[in-house]
Amino acid sequence: MKSEKFPPKADQPPAEKIKKIDGGVCAPNGFIAAGVHAGIKEKTRDLTLIVSDVPAYSAGVFTTSITKAACVTIDQKQLKKSKVASAIVINSGNANACTGKRGMDDALESVETTSRALRISPSKVLVSSTGIIGQFLPMKRVNAGIVAAAKRLRKEGHLDAAEGICTTDTFVKEYAVEVNIGRVPVRIGGVAKGSGMIAPNMATMLAFVTTDANLSHSLLNKTLQRATEMSFNRITVDGDTSTNDMVLVLANGKAGNVSLKENSPAYTHFYKAFEHVLTVLSKLIVKDGEGATKLIEVTVKGSQSKKEAEQAGRTICNSLLVKTAIHGEDANWGRILAAVGRSGINFKPNKTEIFFGGLRILGKNYNISFSEEKAKKILQQKEITITVDLHGGNHSATLWTCDLSKGYIDINASYRS
Amino acid sequence: MKSEKFPPKADQPPAEKIKKIDGGVCAPNGFIAAGVHAGIKEKTRDLTLIVSDVPAYSAGVFTTSITKAACVTIDQKQLKKSKVASAIVINSGNANACTGKRGMDDALESVETTSRALRISPSKVLVSSTGIIGQFLPMKRVNAGIVAAAKRLRKEGHLDAAEGICTTDTFVKEYAVEVNIGRVPVRIGGVAKGSGMIAPNMATMLAFVTTDANLSHSLLNKTLQRATEMSFNRITVDGDTSTNDMVLVLANGKAGNVSLKENSPAYTHFYKAFEHVLTVLSKLIVKDGEGATKLIEVTVKGSQSKKEAEQAGRTICNSLLVKTAIHGEDANWGRILAAVGRSGINFKPNKTEIFFGGLRILGKNYNISFSEEKAKKILQQKEITITVDLHGGNHSATLWTCDLSKGYIDINASYRS
Repeated sequence: MKSEKFPPKADQPPAEKIKKIDGGVCAPNGFIAAGVHAGIKEKTRDLTLIVSDVPAYSAGVFTTSITKAACVTIDQKQLKKSKVASAIVINSGNANACTGKRGMDDALESVETTSRALRISPSKVLVSSTGIIGQFLPMKRVNAGIVAAAKRLRKEGHLDAAEGICTTDTFVKEYAVEVNIGRVPVRIGGVAKGSGMIAPNMATMLAFVTTDANLSHSLLNKTLQRATEMSFNRITVDGDTSTNDMVLVLANGKAGNVSLKENSPAYTHFYKAFEHVLTVLSKLIVKDGEGATKLIEVTVKGSQSKKEAEQAGRTICNSLLVKTAIHGEDANWGRILAAVGRSGINFKPNKTEIFFGGLRILGKNYNISFSEEKAKKILQQKEITITVDLHGGNHSATLWTCDLSKGYIDINASYRS
Repeated sequence: MKSEKFPPKADQPPAEKIKKIDGGVCAPNGFIAAGVHAGIKEKTRDLTLIVSDVPAYSAGVFTTSITKAACVTIDQKQLKKSKVASAIVINSGNANACTGKRGMDDALESVETTSRALRISPSKVLVSSTGIIGQFLPMKRVNAGIVAAAKRLRKEGHLDAAEGICTTDTFVKEYAVEVNIGRVPVRIGGVAKGSGMIAPNMATMLAFVTTDANLSHSLLNKTLQRATEMSFNRITVDGDTSTNDMVLVLANGKAGNVSLKENSPAYTHFYKAFEHVLTVLSKLIVKDGEGATKLIEVTVKGSQSKKEAEQAGRTICNSLLVKTAIHGEDANWGRILAAVGRSGINFKPNKTEIFFGGLRILGKNYNISFSEEKAKKILQQKEITITVDLHGGNHSATLWTCDLSKGYIDINASYRS
């Protein structure tokens, strides 16, 4: 699988104190990984293991869908029972969703096999699946794949692991950073998959984050919730939320920093780096949205509340008319304003300004004198920022989406169930 | 403009007592119409007049968008002030939305010109626009077009009128029926336009209904609200709601029937015919959805409440993954079940059954034994019915959408603002 789109522009740490490093989920101390071809899919890697050599605090956020997959149910139970985990086993090619009791048994069998292969308790194994809905896992292949992956676990396995969780993704998505916490370097790594069925609002998609930071279980939980809200929950490709969405994090404390306390500068620094990793992964997912040719960053500001800013931003991001206009590189502010208009928020259209990049294409009182040439130049870019200033308050929100192209139709009309 | 897709299969009256007739909006007694090329668009007709020769009770439902067009504001005020109207003037090619004070002045000028041309009070003229957002109307052409249309008003003008309100529509949409109310024949005619920016939930799209039925103003209002809820508010093409959506009805009483009383058998009969006309127009809009190749009828039944049935149906209808799967003629029940799962309603996935036409493709407990061949045959049709039976209650709802094809992207990425 290609990775030449990486690192993208989006992928620059915001502060000099956050250093981008190599190694993906294996960048933090004590983590190893592997990805193999188990034969669930025809060709590419389809089974991944991510392992901490000591039990790590674990936390997760999951799809809010009622038709959630077996793995979601199992992990939710597991995280309730136990604060720690050592391994995550993930297969792609088959979501093991809507598969009833047999699906549940199959997912538990994956956990059992992983536990035996790694000689750890089944209670320390989390499981995840992605792919087609309503078909049973080929368990013989899955089991053999787990055994093979366990043998290939190593520090350099992160790229294979990143490939093993992909479905229609066109490039692997991983990222890692290092920050100093009281002079102790702490690392955060992550891997994610897209790229259809991505929606904000309710839940998330598949992403796995590792860190060697030392922090309490409850603070880890809080950190994941908060950062997911600001990243994975703010992206959309097609407005569809999957049966299998999840973000899992493992924190093994191996960096040896003094345990992070909430509200401390050290924690704030760590949190910024953590949210940054999740945001970069989120943007990579959108960039690789099915058929996507452009990453669109939408900021709504001057809103009466954060919630309204988000609501307006989501409506813009989910508007097919906006997404196709950007695909066609047309400065169609009317579709953007119309989306805000129907979003259900309270605002004054005649006070609203809309910018593409730094170029104002709609001024107050519907003033639309702008250079077509400059607009064209901005819209030809691969990354486009849209700012809507409502001039009605002090709140803002940023969300991400991609354009809608014929490629999306190609991929989703030809996908066979 | 072609009309060979018309009459479609959807277009058959449900009861033998409701007779389909020719004449569109001119079918009811006392209505005449015209459509001309005013030059707002390059080639096709773009200005329509629908006129009753006596003042008619009038009612309307409108977009709930905050960025509503000038015509919406004007008509809402008008309908509040006066119970009657004689004429509707509609232009296509320019929505006159987000055009501020000048846009409002222009819309009022259209009303004035129509009032002079028809020698009626401006308070008896309703106005409507559709097309591009954020540009001023070419008022010289609009005014000349109104004068020309007024001269061409006639009983046979309904097809020209139907063409005059179209934008990206590929065929004109009109329909009319006759019912006997106490042995007095009463007629209902209608005309509509699609075909992007169609969403349910909040509002409607452009449709104009005429009837010579005799009923009170308040009952006409109630009839329109209720029937719109069951028809135009239950269709979706792309989930986008426009700045200009409206349905207007004129009832001139010229049939001479005894005034209809709510809860009477006569009214029930009339209401059924009225809703039927609106439903046929709704389906025609979906059939002509931008890039649509298939009409999809979604029924959710066995729900705990009507609201939940509707909510699940809407989520299915708006799912790009479902729409592309149907486009690809793939029996992907997983995407349908996943859509219901994330719709926010309460149900048991393992109790749910899903049918394509009469063929069960998902049984209880995820039983998926069905004939691929039969499914293929059903999915190759131009009209596809999906039934989701939740087996959790007695409520149901039916909604309509179309498939999502590359044609949608073509139309909307190349549209220039």
